[in-house]
Amino acid sequence: MGNSLGKIFTITCFGESHGTCLGILVDGCPAGLPLSQTDIQAELDKRRAGQTTGSTTRGEKDEVEIISGVYNGFTTGAPIGMLTWNKDVDSGNYKKNKSAPRPGHADYTAFVKYGGFNDLRGGGRFSGRITVALVMAGAIARKLLGLSGIEVLAHTVEIGGIKATPKEIAEIKRNVDRSPLRCADPKAAAEMAQLIEKAEKEQDSIGGIIEGIALNVPAGLGEPVFDNLDGELAKALLAIPAVKAVEFGAGFNAARMRGSENNDLFTLKDGKIVTTTNNAGGVLGGISNGMPVVVRVAVKPTASIPRSQETVDAAKMEKTTISVMGRHDVCIVPRAVPAVAAMMAVTLCDFALRAGLIPRVIK
Amino acid sequence: MGNSLGKIFTITCFGESHGTCLGILVDGCPAGLPLSQTDIQAELDKRRAGQTTGSTTRGEKDEVEIISGVYNGFTTGAPIGMLTWNKDVDSGNYKKNKSAPRPGHADYTAFVKYGGFNDLRGGGRFSGRITVALVMAGAIARKLLGLSGIEVLAHTVEIGGIKATPKEIAEIKRNVDRSPLRCADPKAAAEMAQLIEKAEKEQDSIGGIIEGIALNVPAGLGEPVFDNLDGELAKALLAIPAVKAVEFGAGFNAARMRGSENNDLFTLKDGKIVTTTNNAGGVLGGISNGMPVVVRVAVKPTASIPRSQETVDAAKMEKTTISVMGRHDVCIVPRAVPAVAAMMAVTLCDFALRAGLIPRVIK
Amino acid sequence: MGNSLGKIFTITCFGESHGTCLGILVDGCPAGLPLSQTDIQAELDKRRAGQTTGSTTRGEKDEVEIISGVYNGFTTGAPIGMLTWNKDVDSGNYKKNKSAPRPGHADYTAFVKYGGFNDLRGGGRFSGRITVALVMAGAIARKLLGLSGIEVLAHTVEIGGIKATPKEIAEIKRNVDRSPLRCADPKAAAEMAQLIEKAEKEQDSIGGIIEGIALNVPAGLGEPVFDNLDGELAKALLAIPAVKAVEFGAGFNAARMRGSENNDLFTLKDGKIVTTTNNAGGVLGGISNGMPVVVRVAVKPTASIPRSQETVDAAKMEKTTISVMGRHDVCIVPRAVPAVAAMMAVTLCDFALRAGLIPRVIK
Amino acid sequence: MGNSLGKIFTITCFGESHGTCLGILVDGCPAGLPLSQTDIQAELDKRRAGQTTGSTTRGEKDEVEIISGVYNGFTTGAPIGMLTWNKDVDSGNYKKNKSAPRPGHADYTAFVKYGGFNDLRGGGRFSGRITVALVMAGAIARKLLGLSGIEVLAHTVEIGGIKATPKEIAEIKRNVDRSPLRCADPKAAAEMAQLIEKAEKEQDSIGGIIEGIALNVPAGLGEPVFDNLDGELAKALLAIPAVKAVEFGAGFNAARMRGSENNDLFTLKDGKIVTTTNNAGGVLGGISNGMPVVVRVAVKPTASIPRSQETVDAAKMEKTTISVMGRHDVCIVPRAVPAVAAMMAVTLCDFALRAGLIPRVIK
Repeated sequence: MGNSLGKIFTITCFGESHGTCLGILVDGCPAGLPLSQTDIQAELDKRRAGQTTGSTTRGEKDEVEIISGVYNGFTTGAPIGMLTWNKDVDSGNYKKNKSAPRPGHADYTAFVKYGGFNDLRGGGRFSGRITVALVMAGAIARKLLGLSGIEVLAHTVEIGGIKATPKEIAEIKRNVDRSPLRCADPKAAAEMAQLIEKAEKEQDSIGGIIEGIALNVPAGLGEPVFDNLDGELAKALLAIPAVKAVEFGAGFNAARMRGSENNDLFTLKDGKIVTTTNNAGGVLGGISNGMPVVVRVAVKPTASIPRSQETVDAAKMEKTTISVMGRHDVCIVPRAVPAVAAMMAVTLCDFALRAGLIPRVIK
Repeated sequence: MGNSLGKIFTITCFGESHGTCLGILVDGCPAGLPLSQTDIQAELDKRRAGQTTGSTTRGEKDEVEIISGVYNGFTTGAPIGMLTWNKDVDSGNYKKNKSAPRPGHADYTAFVKYGGFNDLRGGGRFSGRITVALVMAGAIARKLLGLSGIEVLAHTVEIGGIKATPKEIAEIKRNVDRSPLRCADPKAAAEMAQLIEKAEKEQDSIGGIIEGIALNVPAGLGEPVFDNLDGELAKALLAIPAVKAVEFGAGFNAARMRGSENNDLFTLKDGKIVTTTNNAGGVLGGISNGMPVVVRVAVKPTASIPRSQETVDAAKMEKTTISVMGRHDVCIVPRAVPAVAAMMAVTLCDFALRAGLIPRVIK
Repeated sequence: MGNSLGKIFTITCFGESHGTCLGILVDGCPAGLPLSQTDIQAELDKRRAGQTTGSTTRGEKDEVEIISGVYNGFTTGAPIGMLTWNKDVDSGNYKKNKSAPRPGHADYTAFVKYGGFNDLRGGGRFSGRITVALVMAGAIARKLLGLSGIEVLAHTVEIGGIKATPKEIAEIKRNVDRSPLRCADPKAAAEMAQLIEKAEKEQDSIGGIIEGIALNVPAGLGEPVFDNLDGELAKALLAIPAVKAVEFGAGFNAARMRGSENNDLFTLKDGKIVTTTNNAGGVLGGISNGMPVVVRVAVKPTASIPRSQETVDAAKMEKTTISVMGRHDVCIVPRAVPAVAAMMAVTLCDFALRAGLIPRVIK
Repeated sequence: MGNSLGKIFTITCFGESHGTCLGILVDGCPAGLPLSQTDIQAELDKRRAGQTTGSTTRGEKDEVEIISGVYNGFTTGAPIGMLTWNKDVDSGNYKKNKSAPRPGHADYTAFVKYGGFNDLRGGGRFSGRITVALVMAGAIARKLLGLSGIEVLAHTVEIGGIKATPKEIAEIKRNVDRSPLRCADPKAAAEMAQLIEKAEKEQDSIGGIIEGIALNVPAGLGEPVFDNLDGELAKALLAIPAVKAVEFGAGFNAARMRGSENNDLFTLKDGKIVTTTNNAGGVLGGISNGMPVVVRVAVKPTASIPRSQETVDAAKMEKTTISVMGRHDVCIVPRAVPAVAAMMAVTLCDFALRAGLIPRVIK
């Protein structure tokens, strides 16, 4: 229960960090979309490890295999199954501390919920590796949205308290994929990289903030009062491990503004109704208003740190300490960037299909 | 589409601000819960207008009527229908500006989505008045959760940039209902009240931040990877008009901490596993960890302000200005507090039923 | 749980036989559909009692009240709430036998499921009166389908073993509404009426078979492999109290044919691909094939009969007898006919919306 | 869209007849259930081809591979992924008639729905081979139900018009697995086998009727008014290719009985409330009543027959003829028997979980 998302464009996620594979089913994708392994792989490669300092040494190639729903290079309308087999698995470190939950991890909650039957190797279902599955689904969603001209991008706007200078969309697009930290501001990125190195030396970890932007989203997507565009986006983004907060447009700052400042005034531009500012982040009353959909998520610092932390031995019910060894990223933010874009795309795609914006057969 | 929420405890919302009524159906409520109009009315009264400066002059009594699902004082297991008839409706101000969308409102997005057929009197479906329906559902959820000892409270922690000093749970409980601003810190509340008066004089509005807290939530609620406790809470809370951001525990601040600071260490207390801090806000890996579930939402300043604002006349496609008259709250935060508690309760209730924590028949 | 049906066009049913009202919410109806009380009332009147021998003496007028979702004579895109207040309630007969379940009724199963808290007056949620709600929703669905030329009709094809002679569609349409038994064959109808009178005299009841036909359904509706057109229709039809079986096209007879007889051969007619026969009942592989969708449902004889029947007293756990007095129809078939058409319409409407056949705004 | 079934115990089906694999995901299975490939394989083997005359010559071994959700021999609470790789694929016969739809098949409807992009090799998603996936899910459901003593069986009761003599449950259990036709009456089975041989010689096919029986189902399962036990069972069973009708208990015969005959009288047996007959098929008001749940489904004759049939060439829009070669069963009934049991088990399992009958962790 709980591993499916979306009403028309429905993704169902499965697989474990140290199990056989990670996989996702995409049901409801229109027939007739050209789709190949290459389309998926390009997105997957962006989240692969080893592109920056402090990244995990686990050397997964993450090669996607499409096992259903595609025939002769086109989607068939049947569910699309995609798998990435786990190959470089080393579960040695996870056996030691079986009964001592790692602070900041889901070990304890999963233990309670699943009665200790959950696969805790590498975090099992709670590993950041599940974003492999999300990114695979996102790749399809992005292709579909592209047919309507909708683009989704995500970039790092803050790491360890260092804020990137805001950039124009064009510059973000240009810079983000060539920045190992997925940050459009090279100067800030350099400082962030130093901070990551520092945290690594200190056997610690750091977090940050990712901004997701969807461009050319037409006005009218979202299904109030409960299936709001912002509500569904928030839910989808909180499925990314380590995300602890979500804000749209001015977000928490809106709470500190006057109405006269925060209200985005309507005006005309090129014969279309637009707003002069975008404090709403492209969403009014749970429905897109035609402006860019802008969302920011807080990513907590990686829970796995080598330094000794206090915990309890749940079997003996006594205090103990733990040093989380395994293979982890000092800062997960850069590798979560493709997952943010993926979850935005998946959500928007579902709304576009609900609204009839994308046809059921692509011609 | 989009007006139902929850998998087992499912609420379906209907009605308009200036229509016949506001209503909600609660399906999936276990049979055997003692329930009367009084239970619901007590919650509704907390969100009624006129309790503070700058509150709308619309004088709705908001009397609940239960129209199904309750027999002989107990829930029957059938859907519970609840209505509040609209009585003090004055739609005069809404007819004037039919084609000029009010900045910060859903007028424009609803117009596009529903082709102009939406009922725009008083904001129609997008009015803050729909929280009447949410609060009615929340009243039932709170009673059900109470059977397991789970309590939900909400309070104002910030208005117009003025922050309340953090208080102990006991003090929050004691103060919140007697504070017209629903703020547990009387000193801050006095300043907030002044700020609201000032904004009103300046024909402007202000926003703020509400914190919701759920106590005694057992570890194990939440259905990863998509139906996470935090994800579903965020979605439910973003259904409250004017909410633009949601954070759990340390939230955005977590993004600025080190892992060694942010990780909540496990320890033992009274023979139970607890954490020494609660930066996680009671949720790890999408599942409750037994600590209080703590969430904060940003409420934007009321979009309706009397001062003149630029907008466009969508019929003529030319620029114009608008002064939003109607009857509105200068600061909606205090009246959104019961809605925050309601949506938390509704969400937790659904998870408690999914987990089998609440039986299908109350005995 | 369980009182909502449909994915895009979603109906949620509430109310009890002897409670305050019967009601239904229709969520997902496109905006811009002209809709008035009169549209709904016309359908409701067809299922009203007292039109034939042996019909209940309960004199409900069943006047619909629309309480949300319609503004200025058009649907707004918001959920449409419809109520029928119960007025002629006489619950005297239901109090007597509280602990002795009536054979053939849901008294026993509801007692077990809801721990005795269910409202058993008049059968509560299990009364045939809930079809009032279904018919109200069906009225909207029929109007929507009509925009695409889709028509749904239903008629009595068998009562108490007396079979109506098959008639052409045109004749069925002409005859059904003027026949109190909703039977297109006047000769058979006369015999059926006599049989009903006979059963009434013998303090007994009889059942029958209803056929539903949907015309002009385009090929392509249905979402295999689980949300098949036939599967969803069957589920929707089995929600009508007393329905015990559903068959499509040749149905059970198909099981006795050869493939060479049962296969509907494709041919061309007026430039379109059609089949020469319709053993498939318009559904192949769970998807409509462009031929009329034909379904037959078996309606069991009314469970309420005045003659003495053996049962048990569940409180004392001893055998007893019961005579079901109340006010009931000797044969419920004619009054179930509008419900069959309603449930077909509701289901087809949902599929038409899923397929994008009906736009989200009617213009 | 449409490839998931169930609310708590949710199965999602994928894969094609001549594609890479057939697979199913089971989400919502409680943690702690002992589960191995062997458990699944035993059920799969029952539906394998080649066990009787007239069976397809396609020699698939159908070996299940569990790719997620099981760890150390127990379910983990995460989604269970199961695959069967297709190995003996011969798509030669399907390329020939690409534009001429086979009578009785989904070729035409799938072509319209998916714009010709559907994989039509071997019927693609519409092949009887998808029951491999259903049976894999059913194997898990049966194990879970077994924990509560619930047993599900299915058997052939009619083929080509030849009816099996009704047998006691014990005899059905004893005979069904050793009968290649899954018929508990050896005498009837012999006649059925002859009829199949005859049909094969005549290049034709035959159908039949399967009965499913669930034993020890406690009273109280089912969620009226829409998620009825019978409604959900019917929907699930109609997902099996070739099923055209479903009836419960007396089914269509109930329509011909008097109320006094059809009503099942309540009585006491071993201190429990039971009924003296089971015309209701174990379901009253959409809820199980504690008696065996009895359902019968009509299976149409195999649509694929070698003899020449009329059809149209959809590309040229002209009449043509077709001889369906491929590899098919003359009578699919025996191989559909395990699918009937599987879909009953899957549906009952979902209801048992909804009702809290099966805990979320098996201990």
